[in-house]
Amino acid sequence: MNKPLILITNDDGINAPGIKALTDVVRTLGKAVVVAPDKPMSGMSHAVTMNSPLRLHCIQKTRDYEEYSCNGTPVDAVKLGEKIVLRRKPDLVVSGINHGSNSSVNIVYSGTMAAVIESSILGIPSIGFSLADFSHDADFSQTLPFIKKIVEEVLRRGIPDGICFNVNFPMVNGEAIRGVKVCRQAKAYWEESFDERKDPHQRDYFWLSGYFQNLDKGEDTDEWALANHFVAITPIKVDFTAHHFISELQNWDLNN
Amino acid sequence: MNKPLILITNDDGINAPGIKALTDVVRTLGKAVVVAPDKPMSGMSHAVTMNSPLRLHCIQKTRDYEEYSCNGTPVDAVKLGEKIVLRRKPDLVVSGINHGSNSSVNIVYSGTMAAVIESSILGIPSIGFSLADFSHDADFSQTLPFIKKIVEEVLRRGIPDGICFNVNFPMVNGEAIRGVKVCRQAKAYWEESFDERKDPHQRDYFWLSGYFQNLDKGEDTDEWALANHFVAITPIKVDFTAHHFISELQNWDLNN
Repeated sequence: MNKPLILITNDDGINAPGIKALTDVVRTLGKAVVVAPDKPMSGMSHAVTMNSPLRLHCIQKTRDYEEYSCNGTPVDAVKLGEKIVLRRKPDLVVSGINHGSNSSVNIVYSGTMAAVIESSILGIPSIGFSLADFSHDADFSQTLPFIKKIVEEVLRRGIPDGICFNVNFPMVNGEAIRGVKVCRQAKAYWEESFDERKDPHQRDYFWLSGYFQNLDKGEDTDEWALANHFVAITPIKVDFTAHHFISELQNWDLNN
Repeated sequence: MNKPLILITNDDGINAPGIKALTDVVRTLGKAVVVAPDKPMSGMSHAVTMNSPLRLHCIQKTRDYEEYSCNGTPVDAVKLGEKIVLRRKPDLVVSGINHGSNSSVNIVYSGTMAAVIESSILGIPSIGFSLADFSHDADFSQTLPFIKKIVEEVLRRGIPDGICFNVNFPMVNGEAIRGVKVCRQAKAYWEESFDERKDPHQRDYFWLSGYFQNLDKGEDTDEWALANHFVAITPIKVDFTAHHFISELQNWDLNN
């Protein structure tokens, strides 16, 4: 049987420790091909590069492993990976391990999860992995056996069309991870509080800042799982339509 | 009764004809405050600016109308609009009129709709407007009475928490728009076909290209409505969880 072909990307850039940890696991499960941004692309969400040309740089290429950087976003990396590097659809796309959680509302800003959602739109099973620790030297060691198990399960079972997975690991500070919980996204948001400053010319400028506001105390949420040292796996749906509101909206008076 | 406070943004930039057309309508319905990117930001999706400072530039300020440009993305513009310009939540956010459709899967790449989704996350009723015509000198005249009617309805009825609206206008080439249809997103995707070139140094580069692939022929879709000269209004849900898949996933063997 052929080994599965697995495309790996992220949004922290190809030199981040997180993607190296993910690659080490995935290489044991199939042919691994890394196509990742050449610089950090956190917060780029689902951005695509349309107004400037894209470049691909081959870093390494052997029979079992290939590694490329690109000057685009995580979504560009998936598209380049499929169409230029592989010239076919991979069996799986994995993204991460992100330095920082992509639980709850963070999915919408995340380049890591945008790569996963793009893959799902393209009909490729895909999983995002994130660790709730923003530091460059985060300890990924406890996440690795879970990643192996989850990737094996996905390769064995597949994922239904239109669904992808968002996997977030807790920061446990030396304690043991307690297991995996299937979750829903917590309903939360970022409460902005711009840091307002003046430049040397006395002109205002602003740093986007803020704090995470979670009012959703449900024990079935990803936030609850992380706070209680569980791995949170959330099935994500690539369908923005609010189907339950369609019949009500049909009763509105919308024609002029 | 106080006039409603309406924040206006877009992703084509503050000088695009589409935002000027939208502003002209909205100014008749409330106090209009424009906070929009100072340059085109199409395809920026839900990107936020975290690694460089943001600037706001006041272009015009009267009792009934204010206009600001910013150097950030559409999502940054919403955040700056709420927190720095208005220092309160507006009663409504409108985004557009986008030069080009944001129907179907395009919502995921769209800065116009990202601004709308961000507003919804912040608890503000919000509507995106797009015309299926990419040209700079697109004719917005037929859209204006529909926009007025839809904005009036939303101000009167409100929108339930967690829902926002995606309104797309057909390109009719002089014919009449046939009315408004409440739709779901068509299930479609962009089939990439990179334009592969060599630079003068014989190095490869790639332009992201491709064509829109719609395999969803449902007559309840936004694509069907646009093709048949209807305005498509799609209620959008800010909830990525695939709730229907949670119980199945709970039966998977995920613990290592």
